[in-house]
Amino acid sequence: MAYDPDNIFARILRGELPSTRVYEDDETLAFMDIMPRVPGHVLVIPKTPCRNLLDASAAQLAACMATTQKLSHAVMKAFGAGGVTVQQFNETIGGQEVFHLHFHVLPRREGDRLLPPGHMGDQEEIAAHAEKIRAVLAEG
Amino acid sequence: MAYDPDNIFARILRGELPSTRVYEDDETLAFMDIMPRVPGHVLVIPKTPCRNLLDASAAQLAACMATTQKLSHAVMKAFGAGGVTVQQFNETIGGQEVFHLHFHVLPRREGDRLLPPGHMGDQEEIAAHAEKIRAVLAEG
Repeated sequence: MAYDPDNIFARILRGELPSTRVYEDDETLAFMDIMPRVPGHVLVIPKTPCRNLLDASAAQLAACMATTQKLSHAVMKAFGAGGVTVQQFNETIGGQEVFHLHFHVLPRREGDRLLPPGHMGDQEEIAAHAEKIRAVLAEG
Repeated sequence: MAYDPDNIFARILRGELPSTRVYEDDETLAFMDIMPRVPGHVLVIPKTPCRNLLDASAAQLAACMATTQKLSHAVMKAFGAGGVTVQQFNETIGGQEVFHLHFHVLPRREGDRLLPPGHMGDQEEIAAHAEKIRAVLAEG
C-alpha cells in the first residue's frame, strides 16, 4: 500500500498541524495521543515516511524501538506506573487509523482501565501530562 | 526486575518444553501461542535473555522487530488477512504473563474478533495453522 504524504502524522512532522511533543531525536518523534486510552498515552513515530510495520526499514524500526523503550521508562516514572502496554496497528483491519508507522505506549497502573479508542481527551490535562513526561526526561 | 531463567519461554528455548515453532534464526524464535486470540497468533522472542522491553538491548529489539515484520507478512499471506495487530506487554500490570520479552503478532481478518486472553486453543488446529505459516515462509 502507498504512503500518503498528507496523513496527519506527516503533517504534524512538517509542523502543519499542532501536537504536544514530549521527545524527539534525529530519527523519531514522541507526542501525546489526543485520544488517550490512559493518562500519559504517548505515540512514537519515525520522522521519515513509512506506512506501518509492513513497509518499515530496519533503521526506522530500530529507531522507533529505542524511543519506545526510552518513553516507556519515562511514562512509568512520570505516572507511577508498574508497567507499559505497547500496541502497534497495521492497516485498517489491524486497528490502524493514521497511515504513518506509530507505536502506542500506555503506562499501566493498578486498577486502571483502557478507555475505548476514539474518545477525544481533555487537552489541558494532556498538556499537563506531557509536562510531567518532559520533566522526567529532563532529569535524564 | 530480574530475569528468571526458568520462565517457560526460556525452557522452550532450551528444548525443555515443547512448542510449535514456525521460524527461527540466530537471534530469534517464532512459535505459535498456545492460547491464540485469533487463528495464526504467533509469538516472537529473542534467543538471549531479557525480561521485557524495559531491559532489552538494542540488538535484541532490532532482531525481534525484523522477525516480527517477517512473520507479519507471512501470517497475512497464510490466513488471507488484511492487516496485523502487534501487542507487547511489560510487567504484570502491563499485561505480561511470561517474563521473557515477546511480541504478539495477530493476523486480522474482516469480521474477526479477538478472543479474550487465557483460553487454551485446540492443539491440532494450532499445528495446522503453523503448517500454513511454514509453507508461506518456505515459498520465500
